[in-house]
Amino acid sequence: MQNRKLVVIGGDAAGMSAASKVRREHPDREIVVFERGRHTSYAACGMPYYIAGMIDSAEPLIARRPEVFREKQQIDVRIRHEVVGIDLAGKRVQVSDLDRGERFWEAWDELLIATGAAPLVPDLPNVHAENVFSLSTLQSGIDVFEDMRRHPPRTAVIAGGGYVGIEMAEALVARGVEVSLIDMAAQVMTTMDPDMTAGIVDTMRAAGVSVFLEERLERLDIGADGRVCSLSTDKRRLDADLVILGLGIRPNSDLARDAGIDLGESGAIRVNRRMQTSAADVWAAGDCAESFHLVKERPAFIALGTVANKHGLVAGINLSGGRQEFPGVLGTAITRFQDLEIARTGLSESETRDLGIAYRTKTVDALTRSHFFPGAGKVKVKLVVEDSSGRLLGGQIVGANGAGKRIDALAAAISARMTAEQLVYLDLAYAPPFSPVWDPVQTAARTLV
Amino acid sequence: MQNRKLVVIGGDAAGMSAASKVRREHPDREIVVFERGRHTSYAACGMPYYIAGMIDSAEPLIARRPEVFREKQQIDVRIRHEVVGIDLAGKRVQVSDLDRGERFWEAWDELLIATGAAPLVPDLPNVHAENVFSLSTLQSGIDVFEDMRRHPPRTAVIAGGGYVGIEMAEALVARGVEVSLIDMAAQVMTTMDPDMTAGIVDTMRAAGVSVFLEERLERLDIGADGRVCSLSTDKRRLDADLVILGLGIRPNSDLARDAGIDLGESGAIRVNRRMQTSAADVWAAGDCAESFHLVKERPAFIALGTVANKHGLVAGINLSGGRQEFPGVLGTAITRFQDLEIARTGLSESETRDLGIAYRTKTVDALTRSHFFPGAGKVKVKLVVEDSSGRLLGGQIVGANGAGKRIDALAAAISARMTAEQLVYLDLAYAPPFSPVWDPVQTAARTLV
Repeated sequence: MQNRKLVVIGGDAAGMSAASKVRREHPDREIVVFERGRHTSYAACGMPYYIAGMIDSAEPLIARRPEVFREKQQIDVRIRHEVVGIDLAGKRVQVSDLDRGERFWEAWDELLIATGAAPLVPDLPNVHAENVFSLSTLQSGIDVFEDMRRHPPRTAVIAGGGYVGIEMAEALVARGVEVSLIDMAAQVMTTMDPDMTAGIVDTMRAAGVSVFLEERLERLDIGADGRVCSLSTDKRRLDADLVILGLGIRPNSDLARDAGIDLGESGAIRVNRRMQTSAADVWAAGDCAESFHLVKERPAFIALGTVANKHGLVAGINLSGGRQEFPGVLGTAITRFQDLEIARTGLSESETRDLGIAYRTKTVDALTRSHFFPGAGKVKVKLVVEDSSGRLLGGQIVGANGAGKRIDALAAAISARMTAEQLVYLDLAYAPPFSPVWDPVQTAARTLV
Repeated sequence: MQNRKLVVIGGDAAGMSAASKVRREHPDREIVVFERGRHTSYAACGMPYYIAGMIDSAEPLIARRPEVFREKQQIDVRIRHEVVGIDLAGKRVQVSDLDRGERFWEAWDELLIATGAAPLVPDLPNVHAENVFSLSTLQSGIDVFEDMRRHPPRTAVIAGGGYVGIEMAEALVARGVEVSLIDMAAQVMTTMDPDMTAGIVDTMRAAGVSVFLEERLERLDIGADGRVCSLSTDKRRLDADLVILGLGIRPNSDLARDAGIDLGESGAIRVNRRMQTSAADVWAAGDCAESFHLVKERPAFIALGTVANKHGLVAGINLSGGRQEFPGVLGTAITRFQDLEIARTGLSESETRDLGIAYRTKTVDALTRSHFFPGAGKVKVKLVVEDSSGRLLGGQIVGANGAGKRIDALAAAISARMTAEQLVYLDLAYAPPFSPVWDPVQTAARTLV
């Protein structure tokens, strides 16, 4: 094991977590990481706050630089190196050195694919103009920041009302930009239910964001300088000095597929709970790989930093000769728009319905603190339970300061397959600055017992 | 069932929760509540914040007034009525009408004892002087507030560094009082371990509170006006225009004991999981009753508002002919000193040691948010696991804004008998404003796998 050369494709969360774990266990093993970008191990989720000006530079978003991996951990990280092919039979990868324009083959005994995910970009003319951005790599965030410095925008249009869209709306409002957000769906945050997202739209509008739902991006118009100056939906034309695309992502699984490695139905790489792919000695982790969904009880494509880090740790333990299984995911996620906290875990009502599960659901309004305590803010909690058993299937929370991280207690309860009744009697913490005597998640659970 | 007359002794959280539940189920049933004080259903935990001046008056602390129970719910609440005896054989209670100075007997078919707990007061001369207070009933909080209005204190001494002591220290500092806090123990917050409480003492001292540990209150000196003016410990003399006793509480179980109802080892009333006492048709709920401790797997005396409300709900369901069990408690609690949040659940290290359980423990320092995110604050998390199984036994958290309510995820995990490893892989929520990518509780868990 210790003499087996490990090659990792992709130097972000999953790849570098795994590589670091292997290094801790095997101080002398050869570990080579190929990363096609310039950066390793960065907090992509921090980019909107960097663009907002809340963080001085992009530097702090980088958890660990390539040279630190090389010098401190003896991990041979090669940036600007793109793996362009996997030869399973020959146990080697073909690598393109992007700076030198050369290709070469690198042998491996074990291979970890951690190629991440890529933003969906619509097939429209001018979508690659210099002021149209998707947020994915750290470089893409830096590019937005630099473009705003060189061409301070008066107006911006965000296409897509998911996490990226909502966080970028906050960021651009903070920079004084006049922001429009469009989404094809009748709601923002389609991982949640419409009754929970209506308040998000209200809050965004109150902050000056023009939100246009059920509108599709149809055309991008460029000016003489080659930059987009306006865009059109099926219903209106909007000025746009800056365009942000937050239309979702797809797993970077083509490389694996082309090598004959199985993909799952989601299009991400199929893995078992040890993060092994269908090919011997080939592992996958992070946004390019599927996870087992603990409530759906089937594989799912959930591309989030937390999951990528766990994937990487599990792969790293197994690559070091250990035995670790990744139990799975609930799709827990949290974000905010300004002071409004937004979180979800497990199944939404619409997911539950789509799965054909008989369910009950309730949405309650509560307060984040005791009603008499200064700063007590509104919070809305929605729970979905299986009708027959009362088992918790999912939860959604939207509310004031302190609301969002309450999702963690729900995530733990759902993981443990608790019922709403068990949640009611959980010994959660109460003091007036922190909660009403019945925590809002319990108030919601009480309506479902 | 519907014709059985219910008498409740005690009109606070447990008693009124139960009475309200019975009323919802049985609109016509006779329900009489005897409350020896003037107030019903109040948030005793809010008193320090009322005294601090953060809440305009004591009014908002009252969830529901006696006349509202009488008029809206047809619950016959009689304040200033103290039950002085229980006749089990005759199924009646003897009641003292405190305003009229009369005694009478009231018959019951079912009896709920919800007499709460009382502060421990040391047997010292002058301990009942007019400026020496324990905080227990709402009236006691009002009394402190009124005394401070009439005799604005320059100095105050708080005896006892538990929840009351720490919250009152915050309150009195906020009012500009020079505060000293003494405790017999070598630490504050003895429900937690010393390595977790050292930082609390540092924070209190930095805020100007003089904290004297391993010192015992020995003497209270009064002036010509009959008010305490100073007090002495075994080590020093301290000026005191106001004295707050926060020396712990004992269950108000004498009435039950005198009637021949079994008490537990803790001195609180022994109940089964349906909240039935050893006597037929007699139930108990709230601070006067024991709870089953889910980790200790034995009865415990845990007097907290959350538990009292749950006791009351369970008793109310059962008194209405339903079948509900109260699974038990973890001793989850939360408080703060100014911006420092303090929380605990399950077993502390010292409790674990005292129980003779072989354990492992780790304390980690982490951040409440991503390191690059503005407002990321320090948080210390301590976990205790069973050595053989890795099962989580307890957790403690001390840290900045957002730290404390993380205890709920631990409480849920401990209730579900999860291991540290299961906690590592729980799908908890991450975004830079809310958490590092590994939540601090998971960072702690990773050191114990």
